[in-house]
Amino acid sequence: MPQSQVQQIQRLLDEFERLPGIGPKSAQRIVYWLLNSDDDNSRRLASAITEVKSSVHFCSRCFNYADSQLCPVCADLGRDQTIIAVVSEPRDIVAIEKTATFRGLYHVLGGALSPMDGIGVEQLTIRELMARLSDPGIIEVILATNPNVEGETTAGYLARQIKPLGIKTTRLASGLPVGGDLEFADEVTLGRAIEDRHEL
Amino acid sequence: MPQSQVQQIQRLLDEFERLPGIGPKSAQRIVYWLLNSDDDNSRRLASAITEVKSSVHFCSRCFNYADSQLCPVCADLGRDQTIIAVVSEPRDIVAIEKTATFRGLYHVLGGALSPMDGIGVEQLTIRELMARLSDPGIIEVILATNPNVEGETTAGYLARQIKPLGIKTTRLASGLPVGGDLEFADEVTLGRAIEDRHEL
Repeated sequence: MPQSQVQQIQRLLDEFERLPGIGPKSAQRIVYWLLNSDDDNSRRLASAITEVKSSVHFCSRCFNYADSQLCPVCADLGRDQTIIAVVSEPRDIVAIEKTATFRGLYHVLGGALSPMDGIGVEQLTIRELMARLSDPGIIEVILATNPNVEGETTAGYLARQIKPLGIKTTRLASGLPVGGDLEFADEVTLGRAIEDRHEL
Repeated sequence: MPQSQVQQIQRLLDEFERLPGIGPKSAQRIVYWLLNSDDDNSRRLASAITEVKSSVHFCSRCFNYADSQLCPVCADLGRDQTIIAVVSEPRDIVAIEKTATFRGLYHVLGGALSPMDGIGVEQLTIRELMARLSDPGIIEVILATNPNVEGETTAGYLARQIKPLGIKTTRLASGLPVGGDLEFADEVTLGRAIEDRHEL
């Protein structure tokens, strides 16, 4: 096959196939679409890729992605400066922002505690979080790490560090997905939903 | 949302979402992967996109994609120069090459006859195909257009043009997919398989 394919096309197919979720069929569809479409589409895609890598870095305060010293959330003085949601990755901020239920600040840990993978306290931005919490204006920290083993471990560790400072420390609720069926919930989630039941 | 997202990231998300088969979730997965991964990955992807658009054009003989005057198939003198498979698009060549059952040349029409879409004989490379067939060395033309209305119409038209030249004109077989079930075949395909049955 490679000898009957133009090498530049083969190279672009290979590059697209390296991306997550893109298999050979999707890569081929995209590459032939680019070949058939206006030069502008390819130019804009290539320049957007280059620009993201050259201009995006971490926010100096919360470690979200930013294109200036502060990320758009930290730079927005209209946000509630007294509450911080601690998340593992910048993409978790995107998910929370979509809910439009939180108007505070964030802190991105850059992962979750996982001794098996060599990720300890020093590999995350925990020291920087604790420094932020020395500001007496902070009244609540929401531990919004993932509801899996690493996320729970990280939340447990952080709660033990933060509570002595007298700051309210909360955790995202676990339970049944809204619109879901009891029947299809896994037993751990259903068990958690029962434990965390609330009075109506 | 947009005001809490870094604009360069939003722009790259938008560009990826324009690609065929890429929705918002896939775009986000790819963009965050690029942000997290080595600069090299992004550089190679961006340059491969730019290079494909600047260096790939159509083969002067068969209208396949090429990076020099002739495409890799036409440039390969080891290929059988007496047989030409006529296809609609360059991607059809990739599909046929994968079967490793054809060692002849190709001719890419650039589409199929479709009066409803304003695609007539003049919009395809039919004139160029007929010019190639004036070479007395050509002994067979395989009409490998798609087995749909436009493809069949195109094959029928070409057969009427080519047969008077005394060149053998063949069409790809239609029938049951290998490994498929009779039960799941659509009735048109199954009907064609019965008509085109062959003796064992």
